[in-house]
Amino acid sequence: MLKELLNTVRNTTPLIHNITNYVTVNDCANILLACGAAPIMADDMGEAEEITSICGGLNINIGTLNRNTIPSMFAAGKRANALGHPVVLDPVGAGASALRTQTAHQLLDEVRFTVIRGNISEIKTLASGVGTTRGVDADVADAVTEETLDGAVAFAKAFAQKIGSVIAITGAIDIVANGARAFCIRNGHPMMSGITGTGCQLSAMTAAYVTANPGQPLPAAAAAVCAMGLCGETAFARLSDLDGNSSYRNYIIDAVFRLTGDELEQGARYELR
Amino acid sequence: MLKELLNTVRNTTPLIHNITNYVTVNDCANILLACGAAPIMADDMGEAEEITSICGGLNINIGTLNRNTIPSMFAAGKRANALGHPVVLDPVGAGASALRTQTAHQLLDEVRFTVIRGNISEIKTLASGVGTTRGVDADVADAVTEETLDGAVAFAKAFAQKIGSVIAITGAIDIVANGARAFCIRNGHPMMSGITGTGCQLSAMTAAYVTANPGQPLPAAAAAVCAMGLCGETAFARLSDLDGNSSYRNYIIDAVFRLTGDELEQGARYELR
Amino acid sequence: MLKELLNTVRNTTPLIHNITNYVTVNDCANILLACGAAPIMADDMGEAEEITSICGGLNINIGTLNRNTIPSMFAAGKRANALGHPVVLDPVGAGASALRTQTAHQLLDEVRFTVIRGNISEIKTLASGVGTTRGVDADVADAVTEETLDGAVAFAKAFAQKIGSVIAITGAIDIVANGARAFCIRNGHPMMSGITGTGCQLSAMTAAYVTANPGQPLPAAAAAVCAMGLCGETAFARLSDLDGNSSYRNYIIDAVFRLTGDELEQGARYELR
Repeated sequence: MLKELLNTVRNTTPLIHNITNYVTVNDCANILLACGAAPIMADDMGEAEEITSICGGLNINIGTLNRNTIPSMFAAGKRANALGHPVVLDPVGAGASALRTQTAHQLLDEVRFTVIRGNISEIKTLASGVGTTRGVDADVADAVTEETLDGAVAFAKAFAQKIGSVIAITGAIDIVANGARAFCIRNGHPMMSGITGTGCQLSAMTAAYVTANPGQPLPAAAAAVCAMGLCGETAFARLSDLDGNSSYRNYIIDAVFRLTGDELEQGARYELR
Repeated sequence: MLKELLNTVRNTTPLIHNITNYVTVNDCANILLACGAAPIMADDMGEAEEITSICGGLNINIGTLNRNTIPSMFAAGKRANALGHPVVLDPVGAGASALRTQTAHQLLDEVRFTVIRGNISEIKTLASGVGTTRGVDADVADAVTEETLDGAVAFAKAFAQKIGSVIAITGAIDIVANGARAFCIRNGHPMMSGITGTGCQLSAMTAAYVTANPGQPLPAAAAAVCAMGLCGETAFARLSDLDGNSSYRNYIIDAVFRLTGDELEQGARYELR
Repeated sequence: MLKELLNTVRNTTPLIHNITNYVTVNDCANILLACGAAPIMADDMGEAEEITSICGGLNINIGTLNRNTIPSMFAAGKRANALGHPVVLDPVGAGASALRTQTAHQLLDEVRFTVIRGNISEIKTLASGVGTTRGVDADVADAVTEETLDGAVAFAKAFAQKIGSVIAITGAIDIVANGARAFCIRNGHPMMSGITGTGCQLSAMTAAYVTANPGQPLPAAAAAVCAMGLCGETAFARLSDLDGNSSYRNYIIDAVFRLTGDELEQGARYELR
């Protein structure tokens, strides 16, 4: 299954509109190319809706949100919804400032997201604050480990159910859930958190996967998460005694570039709950 | 000839003002340093003209244009014109949105460009829309191949003649033309399109070459295009079985850093038409 | 001593708020992670003060300052001052435009900086223009060499004394001074100036060091400067015949990632004056 989901990205070259932060934007563009997709970055209100219209999917990342780009996020998101395009949200830093938290909440109120990908803290922030009618019990541990996995899966499913989005919580163990099922994914390497932007890159790649595989947001998002984690392992195995996080960043993108459907199928480690 | 054009960049260290996108800006800065030039990035209206004044050349790239940076493009471009500095335009995504298309057209109306570098689609967008009096027949194929080369060369020359700029169309075969002559360049590697920003980098490097070699915009731009393509070949030859587009990006810039005038002279593959 | 200063960064993971330029922002984030700190980038007025509040230290870099980010620099700087957080200033391009020079001067007037790091030209621009009462004789050579070192040290101490900040002037020889003492540091490699952003990266890392080591801004800043220079040497030793400035950039960050306290202690080459 994962094999086909990857191959469809390579065979259809989905064009992804990214409204994203300027910290990791270059890595997001290169990982989209690496996985077989094509990136466009455009964040001015004067063109955000139009660029979304010519793309297949939209990736909204609030990492360096500002007064100019926030309205573009809403406009592009609504346009993508109207066109039936998949939309991914990366709520970078939700909870760290009122601007981020409120923007993320308002985006959830006004835009339907196909997938929301963040760490447990960001997703909890989103879940606990989304209006009174959609609130979900976010009283779950702040790290997803074997011990806390059950509670985190239940939380992810409940939030996914409420919001109607696939929820991808990435960490030591990754959870990708809709209201009914959750992939618990054990790919990846701790050193991935020693690079800026592996999360941003994964969100961009997730947009490519769900765009190339319409109607399959849960397995497509899970495939992207498995692919990123597996490439984090491949890249780690390649590190020399002199390499650090900068080479590791390059090697991960390289690994995504090289990854085949068969390798993904064989290397993915997940269980369904 | 190409040898001297390259060496002049290294010997004079032209300072290039870049108003460019935030996706590939770091690569543009590093490739300018790699080729022997020096970069300054500045896009606020409060300093755009002043920064242009202290530089030798200007590179305008509309890749992530916005309401704040567009006026700076016009102001810096006009100042560079007034000072007699070379100006390069990279019309990234012209044709993809009205904002990009109109901005590019208006830039052509108000700023004289020494070189315009883009892919065939972007250049056709520019050519077909520039006012009624300057319109050029852009009924040319959407890819430059051996089969379509004659038509593309004729188009490039005609547009160059109309607009008074050197036109650089990069693709499988690159064309660098003024109204009278065209370099048809067969350096490069298809994998270069698997990296974000090789076009942006080339435009920045072109600005360095035309700035360092005043009065020779056609051969200087052709030398930059040959250099970029040749380095794409050198870098490709260096790829290991584990390398992908991220390492390739680094290797191309590394190759530009290492490229000598003799190597460029010997490795450039072009014909004049 | 240097050993402990480095280890404290790794042991305390200081969170650094960066208002910085979009050219080198990714490298700044990765070098902060490499040295053991954690980065947040946030430059909108809607959150600048709040983000500063949750961080341990602040790094202000005016490399691509603009009308939106300048007010954020002031707001965050004042908030950091009120909270007693260390603040580093990197006055990129001060002297190159009135906007940069005036912004840097006004920042000195309204924000107390723990460390100011720049090249000799930028620091001279700051010193000569800071009001009438705080002016310092900046009649010092434009490059710090063995011949000009005495004058440059005297200048750095005088300016540090006037302004109440540690002054870090980086170049062929680095000077890190307060009003009483100066570290003269001979680590580093000339090729570091062939990469964009080694200065920006050092300023970010300096913020991490002074934040992790409260009350010791002079030795902490000196440790960061020694660490960056030493890693520039380590990375240079690693270069192959094919490597250029892009690989060198990666190798420097890799070296920072790998650097131990013992290696810093043994590799640092400085004298106190």
